[in-house]
Amino acid sequence: MQRLDTRDSDFAQRLARLTEWEQGLDEAVNTTVAAILSAVQQRGDAAVLEYTARLDHLQAATMAELEVSAAHLEAALAAIPVQQREALEQAAERIRSYHQHQLQESWEYRDAEGNLLGQKITALDRVGIYVPGGKASYPSSVLMNALPAKVAGVAEIIMVVPAPGGELSDLVLAAAAVAGVDRVFTIGGAQAVAALAFGTETVPAVDKIVGPGNIYVATAKRQVFGRVGIDMIAGPSEILVICDGATNPEWIAMDLFSQAEHDENAQAILLCPDADYLDEVQACIDRLLPTMERADIIRASLAARGALVLTRDLAEAVAISNQLAPEHLELSVLDPEALLPLVRHAGAIFMGRFTSESLGDYCAGPNHVLPTSRSARFFSPLGVYDFQKRSSLIMCSEQGVQSLGRIASVLARGEQLTAHARSAEMRLQQDD
Amino acid sequence: MQRLDTRDSDFAQRLARLTEWEQGLDEAVNTTVAAILSAVQQRGDAAVLEYTARLDHLQAATMAELEVSAAHLEAALAAIPVQQREALEQAAERIRSYHQHQLQESWEYRDAEGNLLGQKITALDRVGIYVPGGKASYPSSVLMNALPAKVAGVAEIIMVVPAPGGELSDLVLAAAAVAGVDRVFTIGGAQAVAALAFGTETVPAVDKIVGPGNIYVATAKRQVFGRVGIDMIAGPSEILVICDGATNPEWIAMDLFSQAEHDENAQAILLCPDADYLDEVQACIDRLLPTMERADIIRASLAARGALVLTRDLAEAVAISNQLAPEHLELSVLDPEALLPLVRHAGAIFMGRFTSESLGDYCAGPNHVLPTSRSARFFSPLGVYDFQKRSSLIMCSEQGVQSLGRIASVLARGEQLTAHARSAEMRLQQDD
Repeated sequence: MQRLDTRDSDFAQRLARLTEWEQGLDEAVNTTVAAILSAVQQRGDAAVLEYTARLDHLQAATMAELEVSAAHLEAALAAIPVQQREALEQAAERIRSYHQHQLQESWEYRDAEGNLLGQKITALDRVGIYVPGGKASYPSSVLMNALPAKVAGVAEIIMVVPAPGGELSDLVLAAAAVAGVDRVFTIGGAQAVAALAFGTETVPAVDKIVGPGNIYVATAKRQVFGRVGIDMIAGPSEILVICDGATNPEWIAMDLFSQAEHDENAQAILLCPDADYLDEVQACIDRLLPTMERADIIRASLAARGALVLTRDLAEAVAISNQLAPEHLELSVLDPEALLPLVRHAGAIFMGRFTSESLGDYCAGPNHVLPTSRSARFFSPLGVYDFQKRSSLIMCSEQGVQSLGRIASVLARGEQLTAHARSAEMRLQQDD
Repeated sequence: MQRLDTRDSDFAQRLARLTEWEQGLDEAVNTTVAAILSAVQQRGDAAVLEYTARLDHLQAATMAELEVSAAHLEAALAAIPVQQREALEQAAERIRSYHQHQLQESWEYRDAEGNLLGQKITALDRVGIYVPGGKASYPSSVLMNALPAKVAGVAEIIMVVPAPGGELSDLVLAAAAVAGVDRVFTIGGAQAVAALAFGTETVPAVDKIVGPGNIYVATAKRQVFGRVGIDMIAGPSEILVICDGATNPEWIAMDLFSQAEHDENAQAILLCPDADYLDEVQACIDRLLPTMERADIIRASLAARGALVLTRDLAEAVAISNQLAPEHLELSVLDPEALLPLVRHAGAIFMGRFTSESLGDYCAGPNHVLPTSRSARFFSPLGVYDFQKRSSLIMCSEQGVQSLGRIASVLARGEQLTAHARSAEMRLQQDD
């Protein structure tokens, strides 16, 4: 694991190299995905079935065979251990309760001249959620993607989850039952994104597609963006821990592992003003790593993209964090609320020694779909607001239109848009 | 202008054909834009200067020559007629006041176990606004793009506006002064988007790029999406008017013109349950059209994409509108508030006979950057919320972590993410 010191002359350069992530605009992937989208748009179910057979090794004569019935979802929920069922339900309840706070309401007001102005807020009609399948089955992602849509009032949630070779996780299906997903299709990849974006004979077209996926899924989402909404373009997962040197170093080591175990490209960075503490964490890493189930992935991730960084003080650590705009930021310090005002950019902020990132991943309440690769500078966590949209409201009074019409007329004529001008001016002539 | 009747057996088909708009995924444009982006990313100012010379016929030795000084902006504001200056300032004041209502505040609460949960809301640091230049100079777009960012608290607004052959509109520069834009560069096209996204020696990299542009600009925005935020992918402008047949038909004809005069692809549709009224509007169109400055564009637009549609009643008209999710929806009826609850999807809703769309384009207050091509199903008007982002907050109490840790542990083990599980479990062991 790299060791950096902010006082080193090449620090900025080394940090930049370490955290660099060029999100792949891979020409070959782009072309492959474009062909899949086009095939599904033109040939619907038939194309989806072909790609599913070829890429997921899952044969089906009709799309109906690839739909998972509501009874099947309920059966999965009944089949999993009661402890898992209860954990899913408790997590769902907490996620639902947190997201209720994000609900936005329509608003309107009247200005001094009696014009009504406002915004009407409505839920999207139908959304698609993409859930990775196979070995990396994440029931928590089902909850995190579906529940904000439910809270927003989305009428219909369509879930797609690939089932390579027919393999399907009961826990994922149980999560779909708990979250109230309306329909589930066992399809994946760019073909699933295409089916949701364009609709097929069997899969209904949706208004927005959310959820994580591999490079083909991400590329497909980017290509259909505009025809449907998408949530964001996700890169590798990251954690940045700022510690004052007084948290149990084993906890911090394990927090770094919990990020690194996702995949080799995941990034785990610790910033601390105490060099001895960094040594202690390194010792914990060395001691605990061999005990980890996913030791190989963790080792590769920490070696390639991890770092222990010595900072001058905590304020400097926060400044570096702002520059990196991390997906997950842990403030493992005595008084995290004192540091919070300094934090400008982060997907989620875990405050205090007890708040491990993993609590946020599963059940604290906030969403675990978060902006990566410095995009917390402009993206927000997935939320209820992603499933609501706004319509502006304008209702001018007969009095109000007199002054507004004059302003509009001047500006429209300044832009040489005379139909705009005359449309406003005509309303000034109602005395004629 | 086409005349449709919802009772015709081929109505759905004809309406679909009329409103179809495949947003161009033009391979050639994609490739050209990718080359421009890559050149600017690698060679910065030098590449921007080359493309500006070649595409905008504007020669400059350095990027500094292409920056418009604050003094120049103020001079433009002083140079325009006082009536225009006042109209700009009045419009700005109304737009600012409306957008204040969109400001979102950070929030937090504590759950029953004392865990703090919430979201911290902050402004973006720096944004870029793209303003079309040359003949189609729209000072109103400067206000509509810059003011929500100002209200959000964005620290720095960089505006780019092409000046083909050096041609630059005083009104556009004056609007930049009124809106409080921080820096202005006279560059445009994909090279301007690239400069904003990647930054150059002279142009600072921004966090989000908003504003309308041609197919090259739109394609460039799509390609940099993820590295920076963008607002939306805009198609041709549209209006859908629902009228009960009692509005002055000249007003309605002019409202249709005001959309059609934008360009040949613009779309203007009138829905009305009164066939005689449709005849009257057609007569007004025929009479007024020759008097319009932009008659050729209007004629082409109405011929290719306009329609007068006879509906069974107003409710059916709203149902059709929901299907089309128009950018601009006029409810030119006696009681627009009675229809409003039926409206599901629209960028902006203009209510009542006096509320011409053009008032909203310039000065009513709401934004005129609106979702097109049915994307009001999932996109919202540009707003303050586009210039704010959220960070989730989680601070667990020592008590709270006991129950949360157990849930997280069960779910993490269900996902085979044991570092996640152990990171939560370790916090349960603080008695050791």
